[in-house]
Parts: sequence; C-alpha cells; structure tokens
Amino acid sequence: MTPYTPQIICIDCDATAAIWDWRCPECGGPLDIANPQPFDADRIDAGTWSLWRYGAMLPTDKRFSLGEGMTPLVQTSVDGLDFYAKLEYLNPTGSYKDRGTTVLVNRLLGENVHDVVEDSSGNAGASLAAYAGPSGIHARIFVSTTASAAKKRLIATNAELVEVSGVRSAATAACHAAAETTVYASHAWSPFFLAGQMTAAYEVWEQLGHRAPDAILTPVGHGGLFLGFARGFAALHEAGLVERLPRMIATQAAGCDPIVQGYEQQLNAPPVTQEEETIADGIIVNQPVRGREILRVIRETDGAAYRVQDAAIIAAQKMLAERGLFVEATSAVPLAALREYRHDFAADTTIIMPLTGSGLKGLPGK
Amino acid sequence: MTPYTPQIICIDCDATAAIWDWRCPECGGPLDIANPQPFDADRIDAGTWSLWRYGAMLPTDKRFSLGEGMTPLVQTSVDGLDFYAKLEYLNPTGSYKDRGTTVLVNRLLGENVHDVVEDSSGNAGASLAAYAGPSGIHARIFVSTTASAAKKRLIATNAELVEVSGVRSAATAACHAAAETTVYASHAWSPFFLAGQMTAAYEVWEQLGHRAPDAILTPVGHGGLFLGFARGFAALHEAGLVERLPRMIATQAAGCDPIVQGYEQQLNAPPVTQEEETIADGIIVNQPVRGREILRVIRETDGAAYRVQDAAIIAAQKMLAERGLFVEATSAVPLAALREYRHDFAADTTIIMPLTGSGLKGLPGK
Repeated sequence: MTPYTPQIICIDCDATAAIWDWRCPECGGPLDIANPQPFDADRIDAGTWSLWRYGAMLPTDKRFSLGEGMTPLVQTSVDGLDFYAKLEYLNPTGSYKDRGTTVLVNRLLGENVHDVVEDSSGNAGASLAAYAGPSGIHARIFVSTTASAAKKRLIATNAELVEVSGVRSAATAACHAAAETTVYASHAWSPFFLAGQMTAAYEVWEQLGHRAPDAILTPVGHGGLFLGFARGFAALHEAGLVERLPRMIATQAAGCDPIVQGYEQQLNAPPVTQEEETIADGIIVNQPVRGREILRVIRETDGAAYRVQDAAIIAAQKMLAERGLFVEATSAVPLAALREYRHDFAADTTIIMPLTGSGLKGLPGK
Repeated sequence: MTPYTPQIICIDCDATAAIWDWRCPECGGPLDIANPQPFDADRIDAGTWSLWRYGAMLPTDKRFSLGEGMTPLVQTSVDGLDFYAKLEYLNPTGSYKDRGTTVLVNRLLGENVHDVVEDSSGNAGASLAAYAGPSGIHARIFVSTTASAAKKRLIATNAELVEVSGVRSAATAACHAAAETTVYASHAWSPFFLAGQMTAAYEVWEQLGHRAPDAILTPVGHGGLFLGFARGFAALHEAGLVERLPRMIATQAAGCDPIVQGYEQQLNAPPVTQEEETIADGIIVNQPVRGREILRVIRETDGAAYRVQDAAIIAAQKMLAERGLFVEATSAVPLAALREYRHDFAADTTIIMPLTGSGLKGLPGK
C-alpha cells in the first residue's frame, strides 16, 4: 500500500501549504487536510483498547501512546434531564485534549520534528507536555499566569513552561512570535489535532450500538471538540453508517461568547468579543480559529448556541459531582445550558454531553 | 435461567455466613463466595466498554455504573526496564478501587441495602462515596485525620465523612464498632469487592492477546488488587485459557511491611508489624485481612515480596511522571521494587505493573 501523505490546504482560499505551516501563507486562514482518510468500519481494530482502534482512519502512524480514547459513556439524569455523559476527563492527562495531542505528536515524530511551541489555558499544555517530553520532543508552552497551579505543575514536568502575564490572549501572542521560527504544535490551529478529536464521534457511534445521537452539547473555546464531533459524524454519514447528523449545540460562558453572538446575529463569522474572567477558564477564547466553520455546522445541523452565567455553571458542576462525576467548571457549561434551555429539547432526545476535564486537578493538595 | 445466589462461607473454618456478615460469625475469619461464577470467554459482552463486559462472571446484576474498568495497558520503559503499565488510575474516581466498589454497591442495591459504613485511607472511601451517594446508599466513612484533603473532599461530596485521629488503624477500629449495627461495605473484607478486582486480570488477558504475563507486581495493603489479579488468572487457568499462572510479586513500603516479613520468615500468616508513616499512605495496613492467602499465592506462583524505602518510592514516582504517567506515591512502590531487585527478573520477562491511584488528587489547587 502507498504510504499516506496528507495534503495541506487553506480552508478560506484553497492555497497549498507546507505540512508544518500553522496558518495559510497566503491569507492567514486556518489549514486543513485536503485528503483525509475516509471512515471504514471494516478497518476498525477492535482488539485495540484506545483510539488507535481507528488508526487506519488517522493521518499518522502510531509511535507513542498513553492509552488515550475509549472513554466511558455513562447514562445519567440531572434535574429530570436524561443524557449520556462521555467521560473525556478519563483520558490519560485528565482531558479530552489527549485525542488531538496524540495524533499531532505522532505525526511530529514521524516527520522527525523535535522542537515545538504551544500556548494553552492549561489542559492542552498539560496534554502536549505529557506526550512530547516522554517521546523526545522539546515543547515550550506559553501559559497565562492565571492558569491553575496544578496545570502549571503538570506542564513543567515534561516541558518548558513560559508564564505570560495579562489576559489569556497575551500568552497566544507571545507564542505566535515564537512560532515564526519553531513548529507551532497548536491545539487551536493544527488539522492533525482536529483529526484526533474526530475519534470521539466514532466511539459514541460504537457505544450507542452504531447509531448517531440526536444532539451533542459541548463547551466551545476554539471548538476542537465541537468540530471533532461534527466532522466525525460527517465522516460516518459519508460512509453511509448514520442516517443523519446530530444537532450540534455550542455552549459558552457569558464572559466570552463570540459563537453565541455570531449565532444570535446570524453572522457567517463570529465577532471579536470581550474576554472577561469566568470560572470556565478553559474556554476564554474571543477569536476562535475556526469560528466560521463552527457557525456553519450549527446552521447546517439545526443546532444552536447558548450562553450561561458563572452561577449556573457552578451549580451544574456541583450536580455532576453529586452523581460521582468530578469535572472542572468548564466541563459543566453544557449541563448549565441544558438546564436553562430544556424546552428546546424534545423529551425523547438522545443527548450526548462530553465531560471534558478532570475535577481532580483543582482539588486542594495534602 | 435460575438467578445466581452467592453462598458465603468462612475461608478458615468453612462455617456458613449470611450475605452481609463481614467476618465469620464462628471464628472471625475472612469470608468468601463458595460458588463463584466460572470464567467463560463466550459470555464476554464485547460491545460493552467497561468491566461489565464480564457481567456474566460477576456475582451481581448491574444497576449503577460510572464506566469503570477497561483501563489502558501501556508499554513503557524506565531505567532500561520494560514493562506494561495498567493505568488503573484512569478509573472513574481515579483509583483501581472502583472495580471492587461497583460490584459491591450493585450487590447492595440488588438486596435493597441503603445504609453502610466503611473505613479508608482515602481512595476506597472516595470510590465508595461516588458510587453509594448517587445510587441512593447512605455511607458513613471513617477516615484518618491524616488522609489527604483532596480525598476527604471527594468523600464528603457524596457520603458522611467521619474523621478519626491517631494511627490509620484507629479509623478501622471506630468503623468496626459501627459495623455492629450497620452493613460494613468493606474493601478489605468483602468477597464481592474482591470479585470486582478479578476483572483487572481478565482485561490484561484480553489486552495481551489472550495470554498471561510472566509476572505482576502490585503495591499491597490489604491486597485486594494483588488477590484480584491472582484469583482472576486462576479462573482463566481453570477455564483452560492460560497455561500457567503469573508470578505474583507483593511490594510494600519499609514503614509497614507485614507481607514482606512473613515471606522472608517463610510464615503461613504475616506477623502484626509496625505501622509507621510512609509516603505510600495507601498501603499502611499492618494486619492485612487475607494475609495468609497472599503468602500462599506468593509461594504457589513462585512469587516474591519486596520492601522499599520512601526515597526510592519518590524517585520512582518522578520517573513515572516523566513518562506522562501521573500517579500517587503508593502506585510507584512496585517500580521502586523492580528497580532495586531487577536481577531477580529475566530479561525477556513480560511484566505487568498496575498504576493504582491518580497523581492529580495531590496537586496544588488553583
């Protein structure tokens, strides 16, 4: 078989890009893989208990793995609302980010890239560090000084931690400068990262007995998880394995809600918004890289976008903990939205809610 | 099919006991299930992505689950030593205890038991609380005041936390008094808990391509994980699915090492030892409930028992973190032992090391 070679193009202007360009050299737009591997149920490696069961559908070989993916799907009920919680916080470093990281890092290893930079509110950096360091990649990770001490500790164990004061986007700006000369292993920009996120959809499809749910609610910062689910179910649809696409519902905190504003104003691209402090610190992103695609997915799947206040997020986080589901505040944003907008959902709707990040990272030390 | 009814007997004197007796009413010895379900590969429910894939081999129906089991098996290498890490800390509450807890709690639910007591150094209590509270069981959990703040917070979320000052065994004594009048949901005593632990062996057997490893090293407090592996592989052996049993290696901290002392002195039962403080706070157990069985398993499998110092444990924990494996100190005891006694293992030995508890619980808060 011919080895697979991904072709990288700009999603805005169709220009061709090099494999480690992080944005379009012509127009600055986000890049994509022009020739993704199609989903093929016959090529699932059922004996592999990780997302590498879908290895034949991923744009890289596997060289290093921490056992990411194959997370539990748990039926639960909160406040009379039934849903399936996809426990993404049981990934190796405690967040859904490991899906994207493992695909990105394995592609880097395959191309002998051993120096990268990245910026992160915490979980993406902790994930990249845990995959990069042990596999011989030196990662410089730019983090806001306001990120949690636990996440900073995790990053510093296996990468070079660079703290940047100011708003969240200040760390991004510092990283962009460094990306002029070093490969940018960006969870926000990399199409390889996004390819890894698609496996969450493949798993849900298997776990529901080879069908699609009616709706998926995710927190949205840059929207990697949201787009991973959307693209994953689109691939299953193209393969003729699901009849229709799930409604994709984006949820954001009121402190930083560009997608909700774009949705409400029926725009094609989200406006650049405020980036206020919110307890949902994993999704303080006021310029999501693939904002146009997120809004298009919402339109095309009859989806929606909801904003919630911090008090509602804290209440939802507590309700999840009382069901044995210990997650960080960001992960509780979709439940807060479901409680507030429950009348937008028919009673027998099959709802998936990924729980994105572990609540253990924020607990008090000994 | 006739519904399965477990028969409870004493392993020391063969007396019959009631289902929720926690020790033999005649001699005080530990209890067992006289008629366990045999392992039957044809009855594995391969579509279920949790330990309930082995539901037909477990002594209870499933009523409540958080998606426990099916943890990753990751090949890694430390200090030139190759082994497979079984990531038990990726269970729902961050420790291997969830395997036993889910079987015990589901049996309690099946028998309409809604009040229990338990004592725990932290992880077992956090696990029981997360399963009991959400499924409508009131649990009073006795914990040493010296347990970690994170674990106490987890327990208090879904159970009644009772702090007991003094040594670890003081909490046990207080719990035993309460167990006079309330069902004792004990991770140390319950044969249902132990039945759940056997699933770790079934998973390793599947993950290795339907074979047994050569050796398994575990931390040993009461030895639930150790005996779960041993009994699980014994069940696979009885079913004719593995040719021989793995060597079972018990590892303990020098501060509290009754099994190592019993092994070195070739005793049938471990002596009651000191219970000094050690960084491996999950295994400060100076009178393991099934100590005789642990020593017998070591003898019968050509196993061993090793003690290690805290400094070696801390070094091993750091080495695991540098491989992206974030575990608590107790989990690093086997690696410390493997490094120290490496010459007791042939070069091509297939070694399994379960990593028992999450390192995230001990990280600093925001």
